[in-house]
Amino acid sequence: DFQRALLEVPPRLGANSEELEVLFRNGIVPYGSSFDAIMMTLRRFVQQVRVSDRTPLLSVLLEGAPSTGKTAIAASLGVQSEFPFVRVVSADAMVGFSETAKCAAILKAFQDSSRSPLSVIVLDDLERLIDYSPIGPRFSNTVVQTLLVLLKKPPTSPDKRLLVIGTTSVAAHLEDLQLVQGFNVMLTVPQLTGPEEIKTVLREVVTSLSQKEMDDITSAISQPIGIKQLLMVTEMARQGEETVSTDRFLECLHICGF
Amino acid sequence: DFQRALLEVPPRLGANSEELEVLFRNGIVPYGSSFDAIMMTLRRFVQQVRVSDRTPLLSVLLEGAPSTGKTAIAASLGVQSEFPFVRVVSADAMVGFSETAKCAAILKAFQDSSRSPLSVIVLDDLERLIDYSPIGPRFSNTVVQTLLVLLKKPPTSPDKRLLVIGTTSVAAHLEDLQLVQGFNVMLTVPQLTGPEEIKTVLREVVTSLSQKEMDDITSAISQPIGIKQLLMVTEMARQGEETVSTDRFLECLHICGF
Amino acid sequence: DFQRALLEVPPRLGANSEELEVLFRNGIVPYGSSFDAIMMTLRRFVQQVRVSDRTPLLSVLLEGAPSTGKTAIAASLGVQSEFPFVRVVSADAMVGFSETAKCAAILKAFQDSSRSPLSVIVLDDLERLIDYSPIGPRFSNTVVQTLLVLLKKPPTSPDKRLLVIGTTSVAAHLEDLQLVQGFNVMLTVPQLTGPEEIKTVLREVVTSLSQKEMDDITSAISQPIGIKQLLMVTEMARQGEETVSTDRFLECLHICGF
Amino acid sequence: DFQRALLEVPPRLGANSEELEVLFRNGIVPYGSSFDAIMMTLRRFVQQVRVSDRTPLLSVLLEGAPSTGKTAIAASLGVQSEFPFVRVVSADAMVGFSETAKCAAILKAFQDSSRSPLSVIVLDDLERLIDYSPIGPRFSNTVVQTLLVLLKKPPTSPDKRLLVIGTTSVAAHLEDLQLVQGFNVMLTVPQLTGPEEIKTVLREVVTSLSQKEMDDITSAISQPIGIKQLLMVTEMARQGEETVSTDRFLECLHICGF
Amino acid sequence: DFQRALLEVPPRLGANSEELEVLFRNGIVPYGSSFDAIMMTLRRFVQQVRVSDRTPLLSVLLEGAPSTGKTAIAASLGVQSEFPFVRVVSADAMVGFSETAKCAAILKAFQDSSRSPLSVIVLDDLERLIDYSPIGPRFSNTVVQTLLVLLKKPPTSPDKRLLVIGTTSVAAHLEDLQLVQGFNVMLTVPQLTGPEEIKTVLREVVTSLSQKEMDDITSAISQPIGIKQLLMVTEMARQGEETVSTDRFLECLHICGF
Amino acid sequence: DFQRALLEVPPRLGANSEELEVLFRNGIVPYGSSFDAIMMTLRRFVQQVRVSDRTPLLSVLLEGAPSTGKTAIAASLGVQSEFPFVRVVSADAMVGFSETAKCAAILKAFQDSSRSPLSVIVLDDLERLIDYSPIGPRFSNTVVQTLLVLLKKPPTSPDKRLLVIGTTSVAAHLEDLQLVQGFNVMLTVPQLTGPEEIKTVLREVVTSLSQKEMDDITSAISQPIGIKQLLMVTEMARQGEETVSTDRFLECLHICGF
Ligand SMILES: Nc1ncnc2c1ncn2[C@@H]1O[C@H](COP(=O)(O)OP(=O)(O)OP(=O)(O)O)[C@@H](O)[C@H]1O
Ligand SMILES: Nc1ncnc2c1ncn2[C@@H]1O[C@H](COP(=O)(O)OP(=O)(O)OP(=O)(O)O)[C@@H](O)[C@H]1O
Ligand SMILES: Nc1ncnc2c1ncn2[C@@H]1O[C@H](COP(=O)(O)OP(=O)(O)OP(=O)(O)O)[C@@H](O)[C@H]1O
Ligand SMILES: Nc1ncnc2c1ncn2[C@@H]1O[C@H](COP(=O)(O)OP(=O)(O)OP(=O)(O)O)[C@@H](O)[C@H]1O
Ligand SMILES: Nc1ncnc2c1ncn2[C@@H]1O[C@H](COP(=O)(O)OP(=O)(O)OP(=O)(O)O)[C@@H](O)[C@H]1O
Ligand SMILES: Nc1ncnc2c1ncn2[C@@H]1O[C@H](COP(=O)(O)OP(=O)(O)OP(=O)(O)O)[C@@H](O)[C@H]1O
Ligand SMILES: [Mg+2]
Ligand SMILES: [Mg+2]
Ligand SMILES: [Mg+2]
Ligand SMILES: [Mg+2]
Ligand SMILES: [Mg+2]
Ligand SMILES: [Mg+2]
Repeated sequence: DFQRALLEVPPRLGANSEELEVLFRNGIVPYGSSFDAIMMTLRRFVQQVRVSDRTPLLSVLLEGAPSTGKTAIAASLGVQSEFPFVRVVSADAMVGFSETAKCAAILKAFQDSSRSPLSVIVLDDLERLIDYSPIGPRFSNTVVQTLLVLLKKPPTSPDKRLLVIGTTSVAAHLEDLQLVQGFNVMLTVPQLTGPEEIKTVLREVVTSLSQKEMDDITSAISQPIGIKQLLMVTEMARQGEETVSTDRFLECLHICGF
Repeated sequence: DFQRALLEVPPRLGANSEELEVLFRNGIVPYGSSFDAIMMTLRRFVQQVRVSDRTPLLSVLLEGAPSTGKTAIAASLGVQSEFPFVRVVSADAMVGFSETAKCAAILKAFQDSSRSPLSVIVLDDLERLIDYSPIGPRFSNTVVQTLLVLLKKPPTSPDKRLLVIGTTSVAAHLEDLQLVQGFNVMLTVPQLTGPEEIKTVLREVVTSLSQKEMDDITSAISQPIGIKQLLMVTEMARQGEETVSTDRFLECLHICGF
Repeated sequence: DFQRALLEVPPRLGANSEELEVLFRNGIVPYGSSFDAIMMTLRRFVQQVRVSDRTPLLSVLLEGAPSTGKTAIAASLGVQSEFPFVRVVSADAMVGFSETAKCAAILKAFQDSSRSPLSVIVLDDLERLIDYSPIGPRFSNTVVQTLLVLLKKPPTSPDKRLLVIGTTSVAAHLEDLQLVQGFNVMLTVPQLTGPEEIKTVLREVVTSLSQKEMDDITSAISQPIGIKQLLMVTEMARQGEETVSTDRFLECLHICGF
Repeated sequence: DFQRALLEVPPRLGANSEELEVLFRNGIVPYGSSFDAIMMTLRRFVQQVRVSDRTPLLSVLLEGAPSTGKTAIAASLGVQSEFPFVRVVSADAMVGFSETAKCAAILKAFQDSSRSPLSVIVLDDLERLIDYSPIGPRFSNTVVQTLLVLLKKPPTSPDKRLLVIGTTSVAAHLEDLQLVQGFNVMLTVPQLTGPEEIKTVLREVVTSLSQKEMDDITSAISQPIGIKQLLMVTEMARQGEETVSTDRFLECLHICGF
Repeated sequence: DFQRALLEVPPRLGANSEELEVLFRNGIVPYGSSFDAIMMTLRRFVQQVRVSDRTPLLSVLLEGAPSTGKTAIAASLGVQSEFPFVRVVSADAMVGFSETAKCAAILKAFQDSSRSPLSVIVLDDLERLIDYSPIGPRFSNTVVQTLLVLLKKPPTSPDKRLLVIGTTSVAAHLEDLQLVQGFNVMLTVPQLTGPEEIKTVLREVVTSLSQKEMDDITSAISQPIGIKQLLMVTEMARQGEETVSTDRFLECLHICGF
Repeated sequence: DFQRALLEVPPRLGANSEELEVLFRNGIVPYGSSFDAIMMTLRRFVQQVRVSDRTPLLSVLLEGAPSTGKTAIAASLGVQSEFPFVRVVSADAMVGFSETAKCAAILKAFQDSSRSPLSVIVLDDLERLIDYSPIGPRFSNTVVQTLLVLLKKPPTSPDKRLLVIGTTSVAAHLEDLQLVQGFNVMLTVPQLTGPEEIKTVLREVVTSLSQKEMDDITSAISQPIGIKQLLMVTEMARQGEETVSTDRFLECLHICGF
């Protein structure tokens, strides 16, 4: 059954850049030093995979609150790496799959990667790949075990190298499942903190805001906020106008639960 | 199996207005300002979907006590939007379906919507779509995961836009399942509160009530009441006569558990 | 699978009176005012279904201790209604059915009813239809969800009307399952209370009892008793003789757990 | 599947006496008044079934500690009744059956009984029929529900009568499952209590015991003991000799856990 | 399915002595009086089965700590009995079997035994036959029920006799499952206790030990030890040499967890 | 089904050395006396299996913190033993297998080993072979039972010998499952402790470190560390340069969670 499932997944050599770029459709705004630090560490891992003989397999887990940009960072790193094989494994493409079919699709990505000397595999939204629900909790143990095995198994042929990047917003739960421990390294993608980071992002997406308006908006955002959420609120507040009024912005913040 | 289930669901381009109008067969009575506020917010979302480039997918959850008119509001908004594709995904049409078949039917609605530039999908009564039972609790994790994935996945082609409206009367439970968090925004549909709102509704359905009778009835309704319940009690009290006696009305209130 | 199950259930247009009358084979003794009140309320619902345009679907749950006559009342109301379609959905006819087959049979009853302008469906012994066991508790969530959906779905065509009557002796458990809330109204069928109600029943089934014997028997029944139980004890005490001795009656009460 | 299972069970008209007699291969010793009382009550039920028009179905549960003779009593009553159809439904004949096949076999017994005007069905060792295990607890809910339905369903044709006798040594557990409540009456089969009852039994199976030996043995049995156990210990103590020494008897009592 | 499984198990008439002797490959050392008592009781049961008419089925459970020699005792008794049919039912031969196939194999042993006038069936390592795991606990209820039924069902034909011997090292757990209660008698196989028992065993397997060395070794064994464990430690300490040094022996005891 | 699964696993005579050597690709550094002690005990077991007649089956469990070198030790012992059959049973080769297929593959290894007079089977990462998850906990009881049976079953033919080596980093959990008890002996593979052990390893992999740098690094490692982790951190710190700066090393230690 599993063998059949395996055969039914068509072979494919990584993804082309367009498919990846859709995952950071609103660009990557370098909003501050915490963001820079993460990108730098990630680029070093890419380099280590490229050169080290002793570590043919390296795995990094990007964890962080929802909407902090984890998927976008992973995808953009894939593009930057310029590795011949970059594949995003995502629950999107597996809606309604059986556990067996999911395992087959995941395994296939790893097998396909073995045709390329250098590969990146993004395991996006691990909680969805394993069908995680906090009630129970429930999850597909079959997929969890498959991931645990694959994260520990270096490419079979000695001249192949693989970087695995996982993303999740429920790292604490994945730790209970020993999945976090399956990764060599875990990095936390932060929320936007402080007025400066928020202003840097706003400046990129709304051209017309005065310094005063900026100040009013940022001082209204008392909690940390994810970059994707900030973009959503801004868009809601904009709605067809070029400018964004502070009042409308605050109202939208409120509707979105802030 | 899932593939086959998927094929067995016939493709269809949204719903025609009649199918939607049956969901608000007793009309939409604008009973007060809380109702107006919800409708206005919802219309803005329709507008945002129509115009914003950055938010091709927007999702709203309508939650509220049973019988408050959630389904009617969602369906009437679908009609008002005048989007070419409006589909109500409801457990009605899935009685006895396997989990796999339910996922297939839900996925199909999203796939079908991708043929229209502008679409509304109503996920009516989420608790029934996921087979939720508070004992256990039990639910179809397969359907829950499918919904979580679909709520996060924007239309693949850049010129398609989608508004998803969910309805539920057990929002607290769906929050435990992380389903609430899968929606961009949650709005609460209120019960009728205060004599004015109740009178506004009564005036629409019973023509013959004197001001005195109105006062007697509304003063008897001490708890908040859902609009669908008020209509049911009125109908019970009427029963063939044109007028409704206050005594009979109070008796029916009592039988219905008030 | 479900589709096939659905096809295998033969279509039938309601039940004929004989099939219904077997459910109150010992007649309906109007034992007192609480009984009269229930019958009157039920007859009003029949009337409302017959005439109201706004409530094409009405549902009533008859709950009460075991042996209080719930099934007999529902069946006799079906006969009295003179609706062209009266169907009793009972676990009797589904022994050994899979959950899927049970759902199909239940759905079929509702589909069949849609060919009649006026219909009554009795969902007898809901705890058996859903395979309820208090240990766990266990139940068929598939059947529960099917019932919840069907109880909320009015006949599709506007000129059809449907009255659904459920019966149960474990209403508290069904409430935990939200099944009680699925009905528009719940009525409690009482046990026989007080010597007068008991005597009214005894007079119907034993012709030869003296006033003194009646008094002795009724004063021995300190707890409330269901009408079916009273009939069983009487029958046990009778056993071939035309008369029933008080002593033998008390002994049988004791054996039956009173 | 169930339909097929049903067909595979061959129809049979009750059991012949030999098959029943094997269930009381060591005879029925009338060991005292508690035993007489039970047999008398049971014979009255046989009589009621034979004559009463209002109670076409009567059900009795024989409960009691292990080895008290429940199966033997039920089987011997079946023989005494002289009803044309007497069937013992036992887990013996269902080793390795699926739940569905068990239900089919049980249902078949009830269906077969409907060809006879008067029938006895013995549901022997209900805990085994329902695969009961106290760890969990686990049980076949499918079989439990089947039994609950069949215990409540009178023979369909008005000239058929049926007596159902269940046996169990875990009545408290069956009560939790509502199975006890499914029977009209429950009777407790007692253990042997007091020296007189024990001596009555010993006299039947060992001819050579002196009054002194009898007294020694009975005074050593401080706890109540089931009749089957007493017979087993006696047999162990005998072992080839015609007489039974008191010492050996006490040793065997000890080995058997007394 | 079960029927097919049943057919697939080839019929066999018991085991030949060689197959049994492998189960006590290191002989049976009569290490002391507790051992003698057990063997004597067991031989009496063999005799009872051979002669008693009233107990065609007798069942004994050998329980005891791991490695105490339960399997060896059961197998050697089988050989000593000289019954024409002796079968060891063991999980060894059922690796990877489904629950159904296990039941079929067990039932087959009982059915096969019915061709012999006198039979011994050893149910070895009951915890493995029922797939017992203390976590949960989990176990195959299907196999447990099958065993409970078979332990209570005498050979159908009156001239057949059967002795069933079970072995287990988790009697307390089997008691929770009511399996212990399914046996007529339970006997405890002890660990080696006291220097004399240990010396008796050592003398059998190591020829060269001086009295001094014996004393050193036995005084080092403070806890009771199973006979199989003592043999294992001795073998580890020997390793190619004819003699065993005390130091090496103590080291091996330590490695083995003493 | 299991039979088919069994057939589908191709027979193979052990592994060749290359396949094993990949499991200790970074060599085996004899880092200190605790390591030497383990290797010596293991070599003695190899010798015992080679010569003892009474212990045809010997099993050892290597347990220890993650990354301590358990797999490498087991594989290198396999090579050193020079037994004709050495097989590593690993979850790597069973990704997506059903429980049944896993059992078949494991059983196959044991069956294949029976063709060789002397065999080593490594059960690598037992937690993965049994699909263990601490949440629940969940595990494949079928595989656990298979392992328990195989660990207790000596080679059938008297001239065959087998050494089984298990590895795990969750021995406490396996003890709850009684799997630890299934092995004759358990040995703990230690983490690197103390500066000397760490320096011994560093000297092997980085040629250019000064004594001062060594001291700085070892004094920064306050907790015990697994040898595989030390190698990973070193490799991360190296990244293309021949030398490793102390600062960079400490940073990498931090990123890896020390
Ligand atoms: N510095 C940045 N880092 C990440 N994303 C950025 C950045 N600047 C802009 N973006 C935009 O923000 C969005 C981040 O969304 P993304 O889906 O990656 O978030 P996420 O953390 O994966 O969310 P979720 O928790 O829902 O999975 C993208 O549209 C991306 O183009
Ligand atoms: N202002 C209003 N808002 C909503 N419904 C209204 C309004 N005025 C009248 N109605 C009528 O009230 C009824 C509302 O029923 P509806 O099924 O939408 O309630 P609901 O909240 O979805 O109930 P449930 O909790 O059972 O799903 C409809 O028949 C509709 O025509
Ligand atoms: N007034 C009455 N109401 C109901 N039943 C009556 C009445 N008078 C006589 N009966 C007789 O009493 C019996 C009631 O049995 P019925 O099966 O309806 O009880 P029930 O409450 O459904 O029992 P259960 O709890 O077992 O389902 C029937 O035989 C019916 O003929
Ligand atoms: N008065 C008696 N009542 C019942 N059994 C008797 C009596 N006298 C002798 N016997 C014998 O005692 C044995 C009773 O065994 P039986 O199997 O009926 O007990 P049980 O209660 O069904 O046991 P279990 O709890 O194991 O099902 C039979 O062999 C029967 O012949
Ligand atoms: N007196 C004895 N009783 C039992 N076994 C003995 C005795 N003397 C020597 N032996 C040997 O000891 C070993 C006992 O092993 P056996 O497998 O029977 O133990 P066990 O209790 O069944 O173990 P486990 O708990 O693992 O099932 C056998 O090899 C047997 O030959
Ligand atoms: N003395 C040693 N013992 C073990 N491994 C060593 C030793 N010296 C160097 N190594 C290297 O260290 C690594 C140990 O990794 P290995 O996979 O065996 O660890 P492990 O304990 O099995 O890890 P895990 O807990 O992830 O299963 C191997 O690459 C091996 O070549
Ligand atoms: Mg993401
Ligand atoms: Mg609704
Ligand atoms: Mg009823
Ligand atoms: Mg019995
Ligand atoms: Mg054993
Ligand atoms: Mg390892």
